[in-house]
Amino acid sequence: MDTVKYLLTEDQMPAAWYNIQADLPEPLPPVLHPATGKPIGPADLEPLFPPALIMQEVSQERMIEIPEEVQTIYRQWRPSPLYRARRLEQFLDTPAKIYYKYEGVSPAGSHKPNTAVPQAYYNKQAGVKRLTTETGAGQWGSALAFAGALLDLEVLVFMVKVSYRQKPYRHALMNTYGARVVPSPSEETSAGRAILAEHPDSTGSLGIAISEAVEVAVQDEQSKYCLGSVLNHVLLHQTVVGQEALAQLEQVGDYPDVIIGCTGGGSNFAGIAFPFLGAKLRGGRDVRIIAVEPAACPTLTRGLYAYDYGDTAHLTPLVKMHTLGSGFVPEGIHAGGLRYHGMGPLVSHVVRLGLVEPRAEHQLGCFEAGLTFARTEGILPAPEPTHAVKAAIDEALRCKEAGTSKTILFNLCGHGHFDLQAYIDYQAGRLRDYEYSQEEVAMALAGLPAVDG
Amino acid sequence: MDTVKYLLTEDQMPAAWYNIQADLPEPLPPVLHPATGKPIGPADLEPLFPPALIMQEVSQERMIEIPEEVQTIYRQWRPSPLYRARRLEQFLDTPAKIYYKYEGVSPAGSHKPNTAVPQAYYNKQAGVKRLTTETGAGQWGSALAFAGALLDLEVLVFMVKVSYRQKPYRHALMNTYGARVVPSPSEETSAGRAILAEHPDSTGSLGIAISEAVEVAVQDEQSKYCLGSVLNHVLLHQTVVGQEALAQLEQVGDYPDVIIGCTGGGSNFAGIAFPFLGAKLRGGRDVRIIAVEPAACPTLTRGLYAYDYGDTAHLTPLVKMHTLGSGFVPEGIHAGGLRYHGMGPLVSHVVRLGLVEPRAEHQLGCFEAGLTFARTEGILPAPEPTHAVKAAIDEALRCKEAGTSKTILFNLCGHGHFDLQAYIDYQAGRLRDYEYSQEEVAMALAGLPAVDG
Repeated sequence: MDTVKYLLTEDQMPAAWYNIQADLPEPLPPVLHPATGKPIGPADLEPLFPPALIMQEVSQERMIEIPEEVQTIYRQWRPSPLYRARRLEQFLDTPAKIYYKYEGVSPAGSHKPNTAVPQAYYNKQAGVKRLTTETGAGQWGSALAFAGALLDLEVLVFMVKVSYRQKPYRHALMNTYGARVVPSPSEETSAGRAILAEHPDSTGSLGIAISEAVEVAVQDEQSKYCLGSVLNHVLLHQTVVGQEALAQLEQVGDYPDVIIGCTGGGSNFAGIAFPFLGAKLRGGRDVRIIAVEPAACPTLTRGLYAYDYGDTAHLTPLVKMHTLGSGFVPEGIHAGGLRYHGMGPLVSHVVRLGLVEPRAEHQLGCFEAGLTFARTEGILPAPEPTHAVKAAIDEALRCKEAGTSKTILFNLCGHGHFDLQAYIDYQAGRLRDYEYSQEEVAMALAGLPAVDG
Repeated sequence: MDTVKYLLTEDQMPAAWYNIQADLPEPLPPVLHPATGKPIGPADLEPLFPPALIMQEVSQERMIEIPEEVQTIYRQWRPSPLYRARRLEQFLDTPAKIYYKYEGVSPAGSHKPNTAVPQAYYNKQAGVKRLTTETGAGQWGSALAFAGALLDLEVLVFMVKVSYRQKPYRHALMNTYGARVVPSPSEETSAGRAILAEHPDSTGSLGIAISEAVEVAVQDEQSKYCLGSVLNHVLLHQTVVGQEALAQLEQVGDYPDVIIGCTGGGSNFAGIAFPFLGAKLRGGRDVRIIAVEPAACPTLTRGLYAYDYGDTAHLTPLVKMHTLGSGFVPEGIHAGGLRYHGMGPLVSHVVRLGLVEPRAEHQLGCFEAGLTFARTEGILPAPEPTHAVKAAIDEALRCKEAGTSKTILFNLCGHGHFDLQAYIDYQAGRLRDYEYSQEEVAMALAGLPAVDG
């Protein structure tokens, strides 16, 4: 059997992030102030983010240099390997070639440190002492806790309660890195208390946890807020993934026909897809790009493209995105990292432009794909990227039916070492799929703010 | 900050294992048949192991070729990275240079797949259908389950009961790879039933679990037994670790003054140390080598060097090794992978020859070292290698006191993603250290078989 792993040397690690805003055929709609409904300026974001990240959020420059100290930390696990899934191909008996970029090699076990490290770095540069954030599945919280430990910053994490309960070892990992973890909704913020007053048994949502983390950051001068996905600068930082994949495939002499990523807020998806999409927008090779979301949180496939709040308590600006409404609390599925009512504005924008094909998958099929992957490739995927695995397998089987060989690339954005309860529940038949009725979706969308975009 | 990670290309991966038996100043004492007390021959081992592994067990050849199919699977994660622990050095403010080889990058999360894969391979070549084994902490069981999945073999794991309870997600991982996991002592074997009849609340031990796995293998023609440490061929397979470290340090232009590994049965220790020890025995550079064991299972530091059984039910041959007696059930400490009453004969032999310095450490100090490591280097060590981390930190601090710069190399043989309960218990102050009295040790040793070696 031939080589299965493709590496780059550290010299070949990207020295700049790729900003797709430079290549978009239409610019992103502006972000609006929640009080005035007018476009916001950098000053409006200053209570939340340090200046360097605000600049990155709105930058139109194509390449943005990665600071030397961030590169040094990246080098602990980057460049990450690109794998050819030869055993999976054999098992499926497909003529397709399947490649996956494996981001589980980072110390926190996912792609999230790619942005946690620069976010901590720029905050530290700005004199910030404490970072607040939310986490769903816990991958983002672990990554920020890791970055905080390395850069000597306090970290306070509001963890969605259902994930906090499902994954005791995830918050233990954050504690081990020195972070404080609070199950959300909590009594520590007025946003949390308001939810608990109405729904004492609330299992939480990313939208609620964001409200809590933002509230604390705004009220404390020494604190700033960090987000693990959705925002432009977060997606920007993840483009090291796709840039490396491009270089790795170039070395093999290959190029993807199809690129697949799972989407919650959109950061791992954008990370792998945007460098290829940018190349296409600049006149390069065509490529089909698929964004896979959970059917239990069908933002891209059943939501509206409209202005909405990023959080439940309406503390954030209004952004134009695919959304199910900021009051939407998705089913407590195991892919906690994909349970967000909205979607990154950049991802929404390219879906709107027809450059990306959205798809929804139910969790039972995804876990089945995850088990198949573990038993062939040997790596246990986190529940989130099982959505990408499922779509990759389906595409490969379509190639088999059609008798065509295509090159499929997907992002295996994290391992499932902290998600074994999900696999236990799946194998014991305790999981179910959930399909929202038209009425449920319509009710959720009825709450959208009346803003003309 | 300079580079922290040193990689090799796949071409530089060792193509042969290093067999220290070729370079020993005195040969290993023979293995004896339990019934006759006479040296055993290959035929005596055939019920347990396939011919290729029996040959490796007794081989005196220096280099033993790694089969192409095994190399292909190794390449999924090998060569593994060598890290310079610059952040830890800074934190300790030591003039010492600390390097660590990181084996947690394997899909099973430890060094164990280095031997699980060839063991599964040679068994498959011999027509075996099912592998039986025991596991303590679960790292070995996970590794064999992984290898079984890739090579399409059934796997049955007897897991020490205390670990089975402490680490539910470890056996879930094995299930995910398709293995069956039974808490030991169990009702499935006469060895297990005998223990349970006498001690219904037995938390188990590696010695008991070995008896169960051996019993099943001997009784079923389609099954063979696999061991994750102790035996010569197992230690042999692990030498890819030290060979890579040698090549990686050579690229940097460095050479260790001190090499450190934790020891249970001795396999990760031998893996990193033997290639350097072999070079020294062939007239190469001197190097101090430290084997760190838990004070709660002080085989090398308080046991006897004597003939003993490898298991509790006395189904295995008699081997000369450091032992606390096959009836010894060590305290239920969290470093389950180090709770073995004996020690690999090769490791015992080189300790006996004065080539290796044994040391015992208590678990509280080890967990403290593990936390320091996680917060500086970002990687959470499994409880077992925290023993090596502790010794490395102590050596580095000694360098600081003495004002000398030494090069320290240790084996970080696995991550702690499945060991977070241990870190939770440690941080909550629920762990304790245990020191055996002279009487307890003497009583355990009194049960040693009367064999002249």
